[in-house]
Amino acid sequence: MSEIAPAEPWIVREVGAPVEEDGELLQGESIFALANGHVGLRGNLEEPHLGGMPGTFLNSLFEERDLQYPEEGYGFPERTQTIVNGPNGKRISLAVDGESFDLRTGEVRRHERVLDLRAGTLTREVEWVSPSGVALWLRTERLVSFVRPSVAAMRYSVRAEAELRIESDLVVDEELPSPREDDPRASAIFQDPFEPVSHDDDQLVCRTRRSNISVAAAVTHTGAEGTISSSPELIRWTTTGRGEITFEKFLAYHWPASDQAVTDRDVAARDGFDTLAAEQREYLDDFWAGADVEVDGDPDIQQAVRFGLFHVLQAGAQAGPHPIPAKGLTGNGYDGHTLWDTETYVLRMLTYTHPGCVGPALKWRHSTLGHARDRARELGLQGAAFPWRTISGPECSGYWPAGTAALHVNADIADAVLRYHAATGDDEFMREAGHELLTETANLWKSVAYTDDEGVAHIAGVTGPDEYTALMDDNIYTNLMAQQNLAAVGVELPLSLPYSERRRVHEQAAGFTRLPEWTFTDHDYPLMLSHHYLNLYRKQVVKQADLVLAMMTRSDAFTPDEKRRNFEYYEARTVRDSSLSAPIQAVLAAELGHLQLAHDYLAEAALLDLRGGGESGGDGLHIAACAGAWIALVMGFGGLRDHDGELSFGPRLPPGLQRLAFHLHWRGASLCVTVKRDSVTYTSDGEVTFRHEGKEVRVRAGEELTFAIDPVDDIPAPPSPRPPRRHTVSS
Amino acid sequence: MSEIAPAEPWIVREVGAPVEEDGELLQGESIFALANGHVGLRGNLEEPHLGGMPGTFLNSLFEERDLQYPEEGYGFPERTQTIVNGPNGKRISLAVDGESFDLRTGEVRRHERVLDLRAGTLTREVEWVSPSGVALWLRTERLVSFVRPSVAAMRYSVRAEAELRIESDLVVDEELPSPREDDPRASAIFQDPFEPVSHDDDQLVCRTRRSNISVAAAVTHTGAEGTISSSPELIRWTTTGRGEITFEKFLAYHWPASDQAVTDRDVAARDGFDTLAAEQREYLDDFWAGADVEVDGDPDIQQAVRFGLFHVLQAGAQAGPHPIPAKGLTGNGYDGHTLWDTETYVLRMLTYTHPGCVGPALKWRHSTLGHARDRARELGLQGAAFPWRTISGPECSGYWPAGTAALHVNADIADAVLRYHAATGDDEFMREAGHELLTETANLWKSVAYTDDEGVAHIAGVTGPDEYTALMDDNIYTNLMAQQNLAAVGVELPLSLPYSERRRVHEQAAGFTRLPEWTFTDHDYPLMLSHHYLNLYRKQVVKQADLVLAMMTRSDAFTPDEKRRNFEYYEARTVRDSSLSAPIQAVLAAELGHLQLAHDYLAEAALLDLRGGGESGGDGLHIAACAGAWIALVMGFGGLRDHDGELSFGPRLPPGLQRLAFHLHWRGASLCVTVKRDSVTYTSDGEVTFRHEGKEVRVRAGEELTFAIDPVDDIPAPPSPRPPRRHTVSS
Repeated sequence: MSEIAPAEPWIVREVGAPVEEDGELLQGESIFALANGHVGLRGNLEEPHLGGMPGTFLNSLFEERDLQYPEEGYGFPERTQTIVNGPNGKRISLAVDGESFDLRTGEVRRHERVLDLRAGTLTREVEWVSPSGVALWLRTERLVSFVRPSVAAMRYSVRAEAELRIESDLVVDEELPSPREDDPRASAIFQDPFEPVSHDDDQLVCRTRRSNISVAAAVTHTGAEGTISSSPELIRWTTTGRGEITFEKFLAYHWPASDQAVTDRDVAARDGFDTLAAEQREYLDDFWAGADVEVDGDPDIQQAVRFGLFHVLQAGAQAGPHPIPAKGLTGNGYDGHTLWDTETYVLRMLTYTHPGCVGPALKWRHSTLGHARDRARELGLQGAAFPWRTISGPECSGYWPAGTAALHVNADIADAVLRYHAATGDDEFMREAGHELLTETANLWKSVAYTDDEGVAHIAGVTGPDEYTALMDDNIYTNLMAQQNLAAVGVELPLSLPYSERRRVHEQAAGFTRLPEWTFTDHDYPLMLSHHYLNLYRKQVVKQADLVLAMMTRSDAFTPDEKRRNFEYYEARTVRDSSLSAPIQAVLAAELGHLQLAHDYLAEAALLDLRGGGESGGDGLHIAACAGAWIALVMGFGGLRDHDGELSFGPRLPPGLQRLAFHLHWRGASLCVTVKRDSVTYTSDGEVTFRHEGKEVRVRAGEELTFAIDPVDDIPAPPSPRPPRRHTVSS
Repeated sequence: MSEIAPAEPWIVREVGAPVEEDGELLQGESIFALANGHVGLRGNLEEPHLGGMPGTFLNSLFEERDLQYPEEGYGFPERTQTIVNGPNGKRISLAVDGESFDLRTGEVRRHERVLDLRAGTLTREVEWVSPSGVALWLRTERLVSFVRPSVAAMRYSVRAEAELRIESDLVVDEELPSPREDDPRASAIFQDPFEPVSHDDDQLVCRTRRSNISVAAAVTHTGAEGTISSSPELIRWTTTGRGEITFEKFLAYHWPASDQAVTDRDVAARDGFDTLAAEQREYLDDFWAGADVEVDGDPDIQQAVRFGLFHVLQAGAQAGPHPIPAKGLTGNGYDGHTLWDTETYVLRMLTYTHPGCVGPALKWRHSTLGHARDRARELGLQGAAFPWRTISGPECSGYWPAGTAALHVNADIADAVLRYHAATGDDEFMREAGHELLTETANLWKSVAYTDDEGVAHIAGVTGPDEYTALMDDNIYTNLMAQQNLAAVGVELPLSLPYSERRRVHEQAAGFTRLPEWTFTDHDYPLMLSHHYLNLYRKQVVKQADLVLAMMTRSDAFTPDEKRRNFEYYEARTVRDSSLSAPIQAVLAAELGHLQLAHDYLAEAALLDLRGGGESGGDGLHIAACAGAWIALVMGFGGLRDHDGELSFGPRLPPGLQRLAFHLHWRGASLCVTVKRDSVTYTSDGEVTFRHEGKEVRVRAGEELTFAIDPVDDIPAPPSPRPPRRHTVSS
C-alpha cells in the first residue's frame, strides 16, 4: 500500500509500495510521469511485471485503426489515431543471489518516491529484504530533459551483501494489459504496434505498421561494466557484481528515425547525469521565477498548483511541432488526442507562465489547416473546421453530436491566438500563422451564421461545451466566441443571445430554460454511464460549465446582475461530470463573492489527480484540470480577465487563504501580483499597463503599487445538485 | 438482357434473360419473390451460379451480431439482428448431354417469367440451345402457399432430345455474394449462419449459431423417379432421363424445428401442385374481391397498384406471430428489420384490404412489450418505447438521433390500433392487446411531455419522420400523434404546435422555419450520401413528408388554408430521399387540387420497384411504397380520411384517369367506392356510415349512392427542388 504524503511546498512524495490491486499503481504512474512535451516516461517502476500500464510516449507517435459504425454516415471519420507505447528504456531487472527484486515478495521496509518540482527529477528509494533474507537498498533517479528534447536519463544505485545481477533493457512492443471495455472513455491499446527495421547494440529502429512512422531509440550505460546483447525488439545491457553497483543510463529518441538519436545519446552520456540534472534545475529555476504561484494558508493547494504548473509545463515545453494532448504524455487516455482543452485551458495558462511554448502549439494547429479546410468542405462550410479530437490533424471523433458538432473549438483556437498575441506582441507569429488562423476560423463562422427573417443573426444546430446538451440553436458560449473571432478580422456580427424573460436568465442555448428539469435523485455520476443521451439532451442538466464559461471568457458581455442570476440558475443544474467544469465555476464563484465555494471548486480541480484516490487519472493526468488549478487561483482569486487584449484584476481572497502571489509574463515583462486579505500589490520588472478593479493603472520596473481591498463577507453557495466537497485547510 | 413487359392488368411479365451485370437480376429477384408472410422465396432462377442474391427467408429467422461503436454510449444497442438466408429448396441444376444449363452460355431463344397476381404463382418459360446445339424447352412454376403457411411448391418440366440430368437440392449455407460496403443502408450478410443438427433423406435440421434458432426443412419430389443423397448441409435428389422430365417438388419449413415439417410436406405432396395452386387462386379471389383497386385510363398504375397490393399481402398474410419487415420477405435490406413503415403504411392499407392479418401484426408488437418497457426505462421514460428497428423486439438501431429518438413510432403503433379497432370492431383484440398497447404508449407520452412556465405542453428533443432534421422540440407530427394517443386513453393534452407568424406556416418543429435554407444546387440524391448530418440537420431541408404527413394523419388539426400554405412551403424544401415520401405528398397534393402533381407522386411511388430501372429494390421491395401506391390512390384521389374512427371521402380524379374503383372492409361489410370524373358511387354488402364531402351518409346492402363531383381545374404544382417526373399515361 502506498499513499501520497502530506503536502510539501515543492515535493510530491509517495510513501509505501504501490500495488496493483486498487488503482494506486496506475495513478502513481501518471502522477510521477516525467516529460518535456516531446518525450514522456510514465512513472512505471523499473522492475517489470508489477501490472500497471507501461508508457513511453513520443509525442504524435501514433498508430491508425479503422472506426466501425453500426450505421455509416457521410463524413464520419473512417479511421482514428491512437498513441502507442514507444520503445521502453525504463525497464531494469534486478536479482540478488538469484532472487528477483519484486515488491510483491519479501519484505518492503521502506519505499518512497519523490517528484521534485524544482529539480525536475523523480527519485525512488527502496529498502527491501528478499524472501531468503538478503537486505537491499535501491535508489533510482530519472529525468526527461527540458533542455535536450530527445533525451531521458536515469541513475541506478543498488547495495546488498549479495551477488547482484542487473538487466537493463530497451524493449519494443512489450506486453500491455487489456483495456477497460466498460467505459466509453477508455482508449484503444495497440498490443504490437511496431515492426522492426534494424538493431545493433546502440539503437533499435522500428516502424509503426500502418501509420508508418519510424523511430530510432538509442541507449547506453555508463559507470559500470556490462555486456550487451541485441535483437530486433530488445537491447539488453547486463552487469553483475557484489555489494554495490551504480550506473547511469541514457536514452535518446528520434522519430522519424535518424542517426541523431545516437549522437544525442552520446552527448548526454559524455555530459553525465549530474550535468543534465543541473541543466534541468536551471531551466526550472527560470520557469518558476516567472510562473510560480504562492498560496499561504493552504498547503494542499500550494503543492497542487505547483504540481499542476509542473505537469502543464511537462506537457507543453518541447511539444514543438506536435500538439499538446489532453493527457500530456502521462498516459494513453483519450487515445492521446488533443481536444479544445489545449487552447481553452492549457494555452491560457502557458501564455502567462511560459509563453515560449504557446507559439509552437498554435503553429501546430496552423500546420493542420489543410485537414481543417477539407473538413469544413465536408461539413458544407467554408474556412477551417478544426477537429474535435486528433493527433496529426484529421478528425478522429467517432460520435459527432458531441464532437464534430462542437464547432466552438474553432473560436477557442482564435481566442488563444488573440490572447497569445496580446500577451507577447509576437507579430512574427501572427504573420506566419496567427492571422491565417483568425481568418480561416472567421470564414467558418461567416458560413455558419445566418440571419433570420427579423434580421437577427444565429448559429443553428451546434453543440456547446456542455456535452449533455447537443445540436441546439444559438449556444451562447459559441455565439459570443464566434462573435469575438469575427470581430478580430473586422466583422461586427451581433449574434442572438437567448434570454428567458420569465426566468430572467440567459439560456445556454435557445429554448434551454424551457426544457424539462432533471430529477436529481441519482448520485451515480457521471450520468452518461447510466443515462441515455436522449434523456440527457432533452433535459436541463449540464455536464460542465458552458454559459458559466462564457461569463468568464466573455466577461464583458454580461452585467454583474446577469452573472449573478445566471450563475445561480446553472449551479442548480450542473453536475460537473467533466473535470473541465470546477475551475470555471471557481472563477465565477469568486467573482460573485461565493468565496468558500470558489475555494471548494479550486480544491476539486487542483486535487483531482494528486489526491483523487487513484480513480480517475490512471490513464493519464487531466492536464486541463492542472491548468484549471492555476485558472481558479489566478482568474478566480486574482480576478484576472483578459478579453480585448487588456489585462485586468479584481483580487479577493477566500476566508481560508492569507496570501496569494502569482507571476505573469506580459509583453516581455514579469508582473507579480501579491494578494493579501486587505490589499493587493503589483510589482514588475518592466512597464505594464492594466486595470485594477476597472481603473487603468500602470506599474513600472521596480515600482510597487498597492491598493486596499475592501473586506467582504462570503456569500453562501447557491443550491447545487452536486456541491463540491467542503475543502478544509490541512494544518 | 431482360425487361419488364408493358403493363397487363393482372400479370407482371419479364421478357429476356436477366443477367447479373446491371442490377436487373437482383431487381427481378425482388419483383418475382413469392411469400405468404411466413415463408418467402426470392425470385432466384433455379440453376445456381448466376450471381444474384439467394434468398429463402423464414420470418424472424435471424442471427445476432455485435455492434461496434467508435464511442460507446449508455443504452446503445450492443447487438443487432440480421435476417439470414434459410435452407434453399429452389435450387435445381440441369444438364443436357452433359452440358450445364446456363443462360450465360449457348443461345437463349426465349426467356419469360410471369407473376400472376390472381393465381399467386411464378411461371418461367425458357427456350435455350446448348453450346453444342441441343434445343431445350423448360417450364417452372412456383408458389408459396397462402393457405399452408409452412409450404412452398414447384413444378419443373423440361424437354430436349438429349440425355437429361437433374439435381434438385435443399441446401444450407450456400455461398452468398459480398455486401456493398459503400452504402450506409446496406445490410450485413451472414455467410455461414447455420450449424447442422441432423439430416436424413427427408429433412435437414440446422440451427443458427448464436441466436440459437433451429429450423427443420423438409423436401420431397413426386412425378419422376430419382435417387436421394443427404449430408448435413445438402439433400440432393437426382433424376435422369431422355426427352422429357416433369416433376413436382414440395418444401415445408418449421422453426423452431419440429416433425411437423415432414408432415406438412407429405400432405402437400399427397395433394399435389395443382391442388395447392387451386387453393392459392381461391384465397386470392377472395382477397381481390374485397381489396381490388381498378384504375381506368392508366394501365401502368393499374398494374402497379395490384402489384403493390399483392406484395403487401405476401408480406403480411401469414406473418402471424412474427412482424412484417420493411422489405417483406423479398430481400435482406434493412437487415430484415421492421420499422415504423409497418404500422404507418402497411397496416393502414391492410386494415381496409385484408384486416385478418392486422390483428396478428399488432399482437406481435404487443408480444414485444417487455422489450419496449425495458427500453423506456433505459431511456429514462415510463410506459413502452418500441424500437426503431427490430426483428424480435429489442432495439437494433445503431444511430440513435435518427432512430431511437424518433419516438413517434409509439404513437404510430397506437394509431394503427385505433384504426384497426374502428374498422373491425374487434373487441377481443383490444382486450388481449390493443388496450394495453394504447395505455403503455400513452404512458410513454405522459412521461415525455412536460409543461413549461407559461403552461404550454411540449415534447422536447425528439426526431420526427424527416430524418434530415433531428432532436428538435415540438415536432408537429409527433405532437399531434402523441395527442391522439393520449386522447385514446382519456387524457386531453394540447401540445404546442409551432407556427411562424411571419411566414404564416406551421413549423415542422420549433424554430424550423428560422433555420438557414438549403442551397439546392446539388442533384446528387440522396443527399445523405454526400452531405454530413451536421449540415443537413442545421438547414431547412426535408428528407420526407413530415408536417405533410401530419396533415394527412391528423387532417382535422389544420384548416384548408393552413394546409395549402404549409404544403407549398414544405414542397419547396422536401427532397424525397425516402420512398415513404411520395405517397403522402400525393395525398395532400390531391386534397389541395394539385391533381397532376398527385398523379406524378402516385406514379413515383407505384412504379418505384416495378419500373425503377433495377437500381433501388435489389435487396428487397419497398413494401411501404407498395402500400403507398394504394394510399396515394385511395386517400389521394378517393379522399379517404379516417381520424376519430370515422370514414370520410372527398373523391376527385386527376386529368389522366377516367375511373377509380376501390373496395374497403369496414366492420364486416365491403364498401365499394367508384369515382368517375363527374360522380362518385358508393355500394356495399352491408350497412356503412361515413362522410361524403363532410356530410354524414349511410349506404345499406344493395343500395347505390351516387353524388355528383364538381369539375375543378388542376392547380399547378408549387415549386419544388426535386419535382417528380411528369407521369404520362401509356396507351
